[in-house]
Amino acid sequence: MTIELINTGAELLVGRILNTHQQWLCRHLTDLGYEVSRQVCVPDEGSGIQAAVREALERAEVVITTGGLGPTSDDRTRDFIAKLLGRKLVLHPPTQDWITKYFASRKRPMPASVQVQAMIPEGATVLPNPNGTAPGLVIDAGGKCLILLPGPPRELRPMFRDSVVPLLREKFPLATKFLCHTFKTTGLGESVVEEKIAPSLQPLVRQGLEIAYCARIGEVDVRLAARGEKAGELLTQSKEIVTNLLGPVIFGAEDDTLEAVVIRLLTARNKTLAVAESCTGGYIAHRLTNVPGASKVFLGGVLSYSNAVKQKLLGVTAESLRRHGAVSKAVGKEMAEGARRRLHTDYALAVTGIAGPGGGTVKKPVGTAFIALSESKKTVVQLQYSPVDRETFKFVVSQRALDILRNSLLTAAPFAEKVP
Amino acid sequence: MTIELINTGAELLVGRILNTHQQWLCRHLTDLGYEVSRQVCVPDEGSGIQAAVREALERAEVVITTGGLGPTSDDRTRDFIAKLLGRKLVLHPPTQDWITKYFASRKRPMPASVQVQAMIPEGATVLPNPNGTAPGLVIDAGGKCLILLPGPPRELRPMFRDSVVPLLREKFPLATKFLCHTFKTTGLGESVVEEKIAPSLQPLVRQGLEIAYCARIGEVDVRLAARGEKAGELLTQSKEIVTNLLGPVIFGAEDDTLEAVVIRLLTARNKTLAVAESCTGGYIAHRLTNVPGASKVFLGGVLSYSNAVKQKLLGVTAESLRRHGAVSKAVGKEMAEGARRRLHTDYALAVTGIAGPGGGTVKKPVGTAFIALSESKKTVVQLQYSPVDRETFKFVVSQRALDILRNSLLTAAPFAEKVP
Repeated sequence: MTIELINTGAELLVGRILNTHQQWLCRHLTDLGYEVSRQVCVPDEGSGIQAAVREALERAEVVITTGGLGPTSDDRTRDFIAKLLGRKLVLHPPTQDWITKYFASRKRPMPASVQVQAMIPEGATVLPNPNGTAPGLVIDAGGKCLILLPGPPRELRPMFRDSVVPLLREKFPLATKFLCHTFKTTGLGESVVEEKIAPSLQPLVRQGLEIAYCARIGEVDVRLAARGEKAGELLTQSKEIVTNLLGPVIFGAEDDTLEAVVIRLLTARNKTLAVAESCTGGYIAHRLTNVPGASKVFLGGVLSYSNAVKQKLLGVTAESLRRHGAVSKAVGKEMAEGARRRLHTDYALAVTGIAGPGGGTVKKPVGTAFIALSESKKTVVQLQYSPVDRETFKFVVSQRALDILRNSLLTAAPFAEKVP
Repeated sequence: MTIELINTGAELLVGRILNTHQQWLCRHLTDLGYEVSRQVCVPDEGSGIQAAVREALERAEVVITTGGLGPTSDDRTRDFIAKLLGRKLVLHPPTQDWITKYFASRKRPMPASVQVQAMIPEGATVLPNPNGTAPGLVIDAGGKCLILLPGPPRELRPMFRDSVVPLLREKFPLATKFLCHTFKTTGLGESVVEEKIAPSLQPLVRQGLEIAYCARIGEVDVRLAARGEKAGELLTQSKEIVTNLLGPVIFGAEDDTLEAVVIRLLTARNKTLAVAESCTGGYIAHRLTNVPGASKVFLGGVLSYSNAVKQKLLGVTAESLRRHGAVSKAVGKEMAEGARRRLHTDYALAVTGIAGPGGGTVKKPVGTAFIALSESKKTVVQLQYSPVDRETFKFVVSQRALDILRNSLLTAAPFAEKVP
């Protein structure tokens, strides 16, 4: 059974938008054990969409389209596909009700145009869209399964999880057992990770284990997969080998983020955190506060972009600033200790550095950062040098800072009892 | 003349990697006046690549492939395409020299496998790769132009700019004049934007003006394009119409971000800014500090996730917290005023709200936010209600906050003289 993906939208082919659907859908379909054999992107006009859908239906059992279900004049996927399949568009009253309620609950006037989203190809099944007004659609096209999903990721993703996955599992059960596991790692490059684990996994690879590495900035994923009768055994054994060889380089699994792991560890240990950010400019706090429940352990912090703020809100001394400069081990240390003291937290992370493109010197070039972690009995400061572009710099420094905290939390005792 | 794009690589179809080539190449080709009519992604095996290239050559004048030119076992694009076209692979001595020199200059041992990159399909033109060892290739395939580019972005992008653009311009000069302009807007939904401008643009559309809308969360792009003799006139007239009808809803053009526009306005007016962030958790500061040069006008701020921090670092009163709660107009106001006073800035933005998923009440449901802007003579507070997921909430609140500041800066007088 193969799946093809069709992304529609002129905005994709004129390059106004990054196609994140491809990665997200391919990733999730692959982890379910399905194979995506081709992805196509066509503009939202009739001949392109219709040709792409027709060709895909000839090759694949399941065809998923994204985009073009909205209310504007260039949202025409529903229309063109209905025409291609010779289906009439008919009113779907429950969708009409939902659209009306959606606008009413937001106290927003409802443009007449949005009602077009309640018109669906005859015989189509509607997938509810709790996060928007365009429903998803499932159409049986001569025995092939055609699934139409809305373009906005915050509508598409929950719809995929809640409606498409159960549908695929029911209609297209896997022929053989399929298991996979993805380790998330940070701190080592892709080739080093591979060198560490590949030799020991070789015997299992000969028995059918599949290994894939995926390097992103500051992270390497190791994905293990196995099919058939021995899948369980292969996966258990290979997971144990990787866990032993990589140890704390592994920070999580599957969709874990480093920030979510840090919040989880802080919560489990009943510890609180503050930050003092200069060169990362709020990025560490932003990442931490993306995690639901962060407010229980993350109390806040100071964005000390200027020296005056470092002194006034964190108690960094004028002497340290004068003698060592704002980007220095001494100032990093004082920032972390100041944040911990003023916010009364168990831990405080501080970063000070030069993100560039301006501001570098011979002794402290662009890409220099000091990362400090203060806890009750000590403050450690690490120097990091990452001469990369500004946004990448902010990410890698925040990644390193969170990882320093994670490693410290790993050695701290887990919180045993609930405080009343 | 149309162009098709083929991205090769198993890693793309298992979703381990985000396909950034599509947006980058489409964007650059479109802005040169060319039309990309289709993009296809296939795994790096023979049948998929060959079928995709064959089909694309039937439809388009120019076909660009990415990936699969390297030295490893899964880099087989060159090979498969040579077979498809019935060309022998022949040694290209200048490329062989370049590869040898490339490794020598980096003092790295040269694996034998890399020499395969000097084998090129007979008759192909080589595009030099100053940033790697795999050259690009241009092949005349029965009058159609097939361009093979390497996968790594830092190799592909300079090669496109330096070799592919001149080649396209020479071989495929535009038949007619081409002009385009993209307005960046915020504050209105896509359908409202369209309703406001589409009727007035209709006469120009009938004369050949192309309009495209691209909605992202919190932003709608309006792209105008025109071709031919009347292109200049059509674009001038349509830009004027859109500018008049949308007014300050337009925050910029082309690649502008709202944060870059805000930093630009602050700099032009010689004004400074501080933030006090609760529910956005550092996201406003993160966005602002992504802009190079932000440190000249953005002095920092306070991440007041907890009430204690609001009181201690911002001077929010216990009485306001008790009487109105942390998420209230009164506390938002005190946060903004406290940040402005303590950081001695011209402006301070503050946000307090409930990002969810927990923490909501009947009177203050998840999605509620108060956004406050304090300036010398007044503080304004706006209530925003966005019942969306946590990360989207943080984005839309930060977007609204930055836009409130932008609108205030627009009415402030531009900075006339340099202060010594």
